[in-house]
Amino acid sequence: MGIDIGERVAALDGERIDHRYKAVPPDADGLTFGELAAQRRNLFDGGFTTPVLVLSEEALDHNLGLLERYTAEHALAFAPHGKTSMAPQLFARQLAHGAWGITVAVPHQARVARAFGVRRIFLANEVVDAAALRWIGEQLDADPDFTFLCYVDSVRGVELMDTALRAAGIRRRLDVVLELGAGEGARTGVRTEAEGVAVAEAVARASALRLVGVAGYEGEVPDPDPERVRAWLRRLVALAAGFDRAGHFAGAAEIVISAGGSAWFDAVADVFAGIPELSSPVLKLLRSGAYVTHDDDHYRRITPFNRVPTEGSLRPALRLWAQVVSRPTPTQAFLNAGKRDAPYDLGLPRPLAVRSARDGSLRDPLDGFTVAQLSDQHTWLTLPAAEPLEVGDWVALGLSHPCTTFDKWPLIPVAREDGTATAFIHTFF
Amino acid sequence: MGIDIGERVAALDGERIDHRYKAVPPDADGLTFGELAAQRRNLFDGGFTTPVLVLSEEALDHNLGLLERYTAEHALAFAPHGKTSMAPQLFARQLAHGAWGITVAVPHQARVARAFGVRRIFLANEVVDAAALRWIGEQLDADPDFTFLCYVDSVRGVELMDTALRAAGIRRRLDVVLELGAGEGARTGVRTEAEGVAVAEAVARASALRLVGVAGYEGEVPDPDPERVRAWLRRLVALAAGFDRAGHFAGAAEIVISAGGSAWFDAVADVFAGIPELSSPVLKLLRSGAYVTHDDDHYRRITPFNRVPTEGSLRPALRLWAQVVSRPTPTQAFLNAGKRDAPYDLGLPRPLAVRSARDGSLRDPLDGFTVAQLSDQHTWLTLPAAEPLEVGDWVALGLSHPCTTFDKWPLIPVAREDGTATAFIHTFF
Repeated sequence: MGIDIGERVAALDGERIDHRYKAVPPDADGLTFGELAAQRRNLFDGGFTTPVLVLSEEALDHNLGLLERYTAEHALAFAPHGKTSMAPQLFARQLAHGAWGITVAVPHQARVARAFGVRRIFLANEVVDAAALRWIGEQLDADPDFTFLCYVDSVRGVELMDTALRAAGIRRRLDVVLELGAGEGARTGVRTEAEGVAVAEAVARASALRLVGVAGYEGEVPDPDPERVRAWLRRLVALAAGFDRAGHFAGAAEIVISAGGSAWFDAVADVFAGIPELSSPVLKLLRSGAYVTHDDDHYRRITPFNRVPTEGSLRPALRLWAQVVSRPTPTQAFLNAGKRDAPYDLGLPRPLAVRSARDGSLRDPLDGFTVAQLSDQHTWLTLPAAEPLEVGDWVALGLSHPCTTFDKWPLIPVAREDGTATAFIHTFF
Repeated sequence: MGIDIGERVAALDGERIDHRYKAVPPDADGLTFGELAAQRRNLFDGGFTTPVLVLSEEALDHNLGLLERYTAEHALAFAPHGKTSMAPQLFARQLAHGAWGITVAVPHQARVARAFGVRRIFLANEVVDAAALRWIGEQLDADPDFTFLCYVDSVRGVELMDTALRAAGIRRRLDVVLELGAGEGARTGVRTEAEGVAVAEAVARASALRLVGVAGYEGEVPDPDPERVRAWLRRLVALAAGFDRAGHFAGAAEIVISAGGSAWFDAVADVFAGIPELSSPVLKLLRSGAYVTHDDDHYRRITPFNRVPTEGSLRPALRLWAQVVSRPTPTQAFLNAGKRDAPYDLGLPRPLAVRSARDGSLRDPLDGFTVAQLSDQHTWLTLPAAEPLEVGDWVALGLSHPCTTFDKWPLIPVAREDGTATAFIHTFF
């Protein structure tokens, strides 16, 4: 199963370098990414232009290995959320590290995953778009080995899906899971078990659909704490057990129970360990995505490994290097990275280190440096007046929120600790 | 001059459709964009998937024409800021509408512009990146018709630039303009005329550089109002006049004075009309970018046409159509567009209209609809409990800030008022 995707992502190394890829050395124009990787250029003096986002080879390897072990030890199937990176090369690494499949949020992301040969896709949303449903159905009919699941949370949605799939002449049934909302005021998903039953009954009436499980997202539990999150997860499990007893999963060879972002997978592991025996084998599916690169702020604060440090710890794998283009006053400096390059929705970047343009020396930590704001193309840095930071120096920025970092970079060099660029990761947003 | 870029952007219509382009009809896979455009599909039932960002053909035409007339009437040269759209097809339209050249913010954007044959580029930043300077210098040496300007605002920056260009063996001098900061606490640029003189003297010592003017960005004037902005613009003009008298522009065949975002071009027009005669002809260069699509919130509030309505008015040209995927409670609905699709830095999207999935009917305005928040892939909509909005309906969202809209869409359909998709615009971020 890994072979197809391996071949298809390898083809990305054959893409030719041109103006489409920011930060890639201009003098590498016309080379393939594979050829550039083989040159083993250094990030700092190999012709890369600033700003440049870098993925740490060591941290990435570590994080991939850690969640592989974690999910195996907790007997969880794993469909890492692909929306985080939208990088098929990382999907391939995740699958090679034992992942069951890839989660996506919208049909376009499923198209990208399918284009690279992903065989199992969990789409964590209801899909009521007729054109997208036709495409999904055609994929199912064309490939008996393709597994696809998505949410349902309304009778109206079920009716639209059924109508669209039947109109498109799709032969295979579309597998759906009922989404349970995480609480009052939370995001999508039915609010009550009674609503869930009504949706399940609508699915039973829909000849194009088949109900195979339940799912939700504990990350949206209001005022989350370990007890509230576990309470909701137990409710999700009880819903599955009740549906099973009522025969709502009669058509399913396997019953899917899925939850799990990157903030509460310890609670998911605990509660899913207590899932009772059901009428068919249960696929306990975790969907964490941000773990793959972790971060220096938001996920650093909320990672479950803060609660279970004996089970490991993730490493921040993304660093944004930007260059000082102005220091107009002693306490202000401006970097050439902005909203186009760095995430700003869950906290601003954090200056971590300076690389001197004079001698290449590195210094950290940076006391008294803060990012005051981001413009479209500038970072506003506040710093101590006595700081020797100069125009031309490079500044490493720690970032908050992988999802809104990846989507700003069509191409991300992977580099080793010493700066050697060993691979190039393409993203598709 | 328009011919080259016209040919090169026309080649984009030959690109083949595949998974790289969200919202584009899945059943158009394998067609070229030119072939898809020729099919004249309708946005609403032509197989486009949601969410889909749409550029209004009529509003775009209007805005392009309005700034062409405005700059001509005020005798301003125009280098619209390309960082807004990073869409060479729009650059070509802007040049065809009389623009002198294209402004960019960083060297990568200049690479994109050059790849499509833009002959005059104004880079509104200091560039101290040696790899980028080498590329710029090679472009200059390879094409005597290529005009390139960028900022200088520090002696250290001038020294780094000179060193890098000389090390790269560049023969043509790089034209630079001194950046004047917009005030205390403002962004880049020298704070005082004395600092400006020191930088000008450093340029005079640098054999690889030539000082040809002054520039700045009045959008960063602290607590801006018409009087403060005009005062700063007069200071910029006085700086140019003083530099001219002092012989700092001795090597320039043309003296460049540049300012102007999308909030104060009326003030720029006023003050630049009073630029005195200098020792060489003066290029009065305006750089507004956001005008090309305008918006429904931020720029709608701050556009100069609010002060000078007799000179015209811009039209919002971007609309994001998203689909209702859940309505879990009477006062909540969720759309399938999120931070990946809509800007959120200068205000959240505004629901403008609903297109019924039942009969295609359109209704607006939407009383009592607000966007409460955006998740990565969801819009949280709050609405009146009695609202008939259903799962499957499409909602049109007005947006705030073109720059952070374009950068979320590699491909944007252009559609007429009736929904006919007539062209496809590629962006390069």
